[in-house]
Amino acid sequence: MAKNNKKKIQRPEGKLKVMMLGGLNEIGKNMAVLEWGDDIIVIDCGLAFPDEDMLGIDLVIPDVSYLEKNIDKVRGILLTHGHEDHIGALPYVLRSINVPVYGTRLTLGILENKLSEHKLLDKVKLITVDAGETVKLGVFAAEFIRVNHSIADACAIAITTPVGVVMHTGDFKLDVSPIDGGMMDLTRIGEYGREGVMLLMCESTNVERAGYTPSERRVGGQLDNIFMSNTDKRIVIATFSSNVHRVQQIINTSVKFGRKVAVTGRSMLNVVGAAVKLGYMNVPAGVLIDISEISRYPAEMITIITTGSQGEPMSALYRMAFSDHNMVELTSNDLVILSSHAIPGNEVLVGKIINEMYRRGVNVYHEEAEVHVSGHACQEEIKLMHALCKPKYLMPIHGEYRHLMQHKELAEFMGMRSEDVFVCEIGQVLELDGETCKKAGNVPSGRVLVDGYGVGDVGNIVLRDRRHLAQDGLIVVVATVEASEQMLISGPDIISRGFVYVRESEELMDEVKAIAKQILEETLDAGVTEWNQLKANVKDGLSKYLYQKTKRKPMILPVIMNV
Amino acid sequence: MAKNNKKKIQRPEGKLKVMMLGGLNEIGKNMAVLEWGDDIIVIDCGLAFPDEDMLGIDLVIPDVSYLEKNIDKVRGILLTHGHEDHIGALPYVLRSINVPVYGTRLTLGILENKLSEHKLLDKVKLITVDAGETVKLGVFAAEFIRVNHSIADACAIAITTPVGVVMHTGDFKLDVSPIDGGMMDLTRIGEYGREGVMLLMCESTNVERAGYTPSERRVGGQLDNIFMSNTDKRIVIATFSSNVHRVQQIINTSVKFGRKVAVTGRSMLNVVGAAVKLGYMNVPAGVLIDISEISRYPAEMITIITTGSQGEPMSALYRMAFSDHNMVELTSNDLVILSSHAIPGNEVLVGKIINEMYRRGVNVYHEEAEVHVSGHACQEEIKLMHALCKPKYLMPIHGEYRHLMQHKELAEFMGMRSEDVFVCEIGQVLELDGETCKKAGNVPSGRVLVDGYGVGDVGNIVLRDRRHLAQDGLIVVVATVEASEQMLISGPDIISRGFVYVRESEELMDEVKAIAKQILEETLDAGVTEWNQLKANVKDGLSKYLYQKTKRKPMILPVIMNV
Repeated sequence: MAKNNKKKIQRPEGKLKVMMLGGLNEIGKNMAVLEWGDDIIVIDCGLAFPDEDMLGIDLVIPDVSYLEKNIDKVRGILLTHGHEDHIGALPYVLRSINVPVYGTRLTLGILENKLSEHKLLDKVKLITVDAGETVKLGVFAAEFIRVNHSIADACAIAITTPVGVVMHTGDFKLDVSPIDGGMMDLTRIGEYGREGVMLLMCESTNVERAGYTPSERRVGGQLDNIFMSNTDKRIVIATFSSNVHRVQQIINTSVKFGRKVAVTGRSMLNVVGAAVKLGYMNVPAGVLIDISEISRYPAEMITIITTGSQGEPMSALYRMAFSDHNMVELTSNDLVILSSHAIPGNEVLVGKIINEMYRRGVNVYHEEAEVHVSGHACQEEIKLMHALCKPKYLMPIHGEYRHLMQHKELAEFMGMRSEDVFVCEIGQVLELDGETCKKAGNVPSGRVLVDGYGVGDVGNIVLRDRRHLAQDGLIVVVATVEASEQMLISGPDIISRGFVYVRESEELMDEVKAIAKQILEETLDAGVTEWNQLKANVKDGLSKYLYQKTKRKPMILPVIMNV
Repeated sequence: MAKNNKKKIQRPEGKLKVMMLGGLNEIGKNMAVLEWGDDIIVIDCGLAFPDEDMLGIDLVIPDVSYLEKNIDKVRGILLTHGHEDHIGALPYVLRSINVPVYGTRLTLGILENKLSEHKLLDKVKLITVDAGETVKLGVFAAEFIRVNHSIADACAIAITTPVGVVMHTGDFKLDVSPIDGGMMDLTRIGEYGREGVMLLMCESTNVERAGYTPSERRVGGQLDNIFMSNTDKRIVIATFSSNVHRVQQIINTSVKFGRKVAVTGRSMLNVVGAAVKLGYMNVPAGVLIDISEISRYPAEMITIITTGSQGEPMSALYRMAFSDHNMVELTSNDLVILSSHAIPGNEVLVGKIINEMYRRGVNVYHEEAEVHVSGHACQEEIKLMHALCKPKYLMPIHGEYRHLMQHKELAEFMGMRSEDVFVCEIGQVLELDGETCKKAGNVPSGRVLVDGYGVGDVGNIVLRDRRHLAQDGLIVVVATVEASEQMLISGPDIISRGFVYVRESEELMDEVKAIAKQILEETLDAGVTEWNQLKANVKDGLSKYLYQKTKRKPMILPVIMNV
């Protein structure tokens, strides 16, 4: 690609540092940091959902200790859009890094709901920015630029720095026939490109998919067809609550067919509420009814929009499928449409709901290709972004390794030199001086686990124990020892949980008891009074015996009481 | 569909019972049972892999207590093919139901390896059957009929019973250009159809997919293309070990390009060994080399065939990706091809390996649509089976609810009456008298969990405890009480695992201790000497406190010692 940075930038003293604290080699917890001298700005502050092996964890947020250490420099947090993986960590991060937060109206509208729930709303300064506006933060000037995405009011952000422009795409797609809010501002991005983009930070989620992502509008046409051939049924549609345009289209089609629309599911109510209040949704009077009112109308005059498209076990759709929803009972007179895509890892959960609905004779429509489109740029759209920005350097962001590496290949296809593309790890610092760009060390980074009210109090050791307990359960060996006489005076008693069904394994449990007793007595007879040694012997001896006998390795907890 | 059962069957005394003990409303542990008077035959005896919530479980087998109770009637077990979900439960089931096992040569060859591992080989009678042969078992005559599938030597089984023919399709697809072993015997199936099929038991796995499944041969053409453009690289291909034809094609292409082939992974070595020995694979002399010999040849002259296409954590491919394979280290000079489909639930595991390979700069080819084809019949092939068999009754088998219900729709599309299609549960009995077919009660059925050497000793209570422990860990409260004086004389001590990182939560743990102490003392002061009451109070009090404080619910185990 031609490097036509036409204006020679006056090279100032100092260097721009750019790093991601999340969103590299993972999906989620997106967070970018730009630093120049005494100024730091942050772009996005998202959460990630736990991996399968993070047992009991509710969500994962970025380690922001680098920002905490440099709290005096942090000028603000800029948000590209209102998805959880871009704003979801704010209620946790703002507690220690309480700086102004900038975003578009809908983004902040959704954030306000979150902050209220965490009782933080009156403690945080939120500043609304319209697409096209520029925010000055220390040495930086950040312009919000309209992009299309699966949520309304999404933006890329172009940051003018002393060493040139950094273009952060946020998450984007190109929709030439958007439902509302206008097409991605190709012109403005192209203007930046013409003037010269030093570093492009471009999302990579769909880089493995060829072609263009279809327009959101295509879903509307398909919904019309489905409604047309199901005028005798109640229609229930599950989709992502944040996809305001999808919800709008479901409402449009419902209006067309004379249906009332009821909304269920907490996050759906939140987002639809915010979107209607802020004017992001256009609902004719009398169309929206409360879910408690659906029985007042004939079933075939009702559309229900619900959460649960990811199979979440407590979601409204899950409760409907398993007869646990207090307002909606699904029958063979219902058509349930899954207008969504199962996020990797959720396929089995989604399948569980689909099967349960089939079991009850419910009609299920789950042709994802027909009633869902992605919100992310496919290969041709990413190429378009490259062609418009003509960046000198590229940092692929928002993707796993496979995505970042394939984005690199795509950049090379577009003419970039391999050495101008930086596939980084989180915490890895890029240093730009206006001419060169290079990797320059690391700052602390990582993941912080949230479990209930606890933020960061569950780490690898706790998780390892949970996995151990999950695998083969637990055996507690309780004994009382008279220390001075070195005598076992009571026990050992054996308590087990999650190991075997004790009532049907009495023989095994008796043997465990006998072996524990033998080990304790032998150890005491040998004159060992060191509690740790006593415990270690019980642990080792029982582990060995149980593995031979059952091929299992339960956690063994010896409790030796001393009287 | 016309019911042209041309010959009027002489109605005998008695009724045929047909039931599935596994393979309905689930993927795996396939097992069908036919019973007439004093004769029972079994078709297939497979395992299933555990669901995500079956923590620590290795595999799942059918509950065969109905067969155990009727052991004197059981004449034999017929196997349709050698996949785990059709033969994998035999090493467990044969211990109590040691009857002759019938199958084709390759099926029994694979089974022999399994039985050897379980030291059962010399205790079991295996009888080889060729496609086209008929086996007489009591009142039943069972003909094995060639079908195509993703394993060689697969059969449908047509069972002639006193009330007509039951056609069990096994798993099948139609491959008009098979690699080896011939095309599915449409003619023989059609002959049965012409004579009259009373009940069709037809697989449903791919019933959601339109069209025909492509020929296995298509993969070979694509492999040729990939090898052609990667003559400078070592090529590593992961696929299902049992797909003998896939492995054959990889060998064919390797030979074409002058490469030596090495095989790695235990199950791959087993199956390839059996297939070569039994003549199911055609390998020119000198092509196969031991994996330890690969360093003797230039890398670009080597193909490695490996297990691990499902991302299994101890598989050969996993070990290669994470630098833990003692013979193969992957680099940017390798091309790794995933010639497979991620089974639902395994996507994340497969993704983990792909990401790790990208991280190391390995070239990865994972366009499933190009280098893999399914082994199961799509809609048009299922329709073909219906059209050939023209069954009077249908029991869709081998599928979740969604598949069975959509199979029912397909049957109605083909002209069957809704009431002639029986979507059943496992254990549910169909009774046929030569004219009618109806549901007639249930026999015991279900799942038996295998964990290590234990078969059936882990049930719902143990699993519930494992899930509880996995979620929030464990707190053990240990105290010694002087019973007669009602006095706490030692403790309480608190031990926790998997709850919080104790060193960073000293304050919390101190509070837990204080509260436990208070509860114990108050309960004892109140004159309660009932141990269960004492324990319940500790449990309830601590649970309540911890939930308020942390929003977590660890398992609480009070241990009260009495001196």
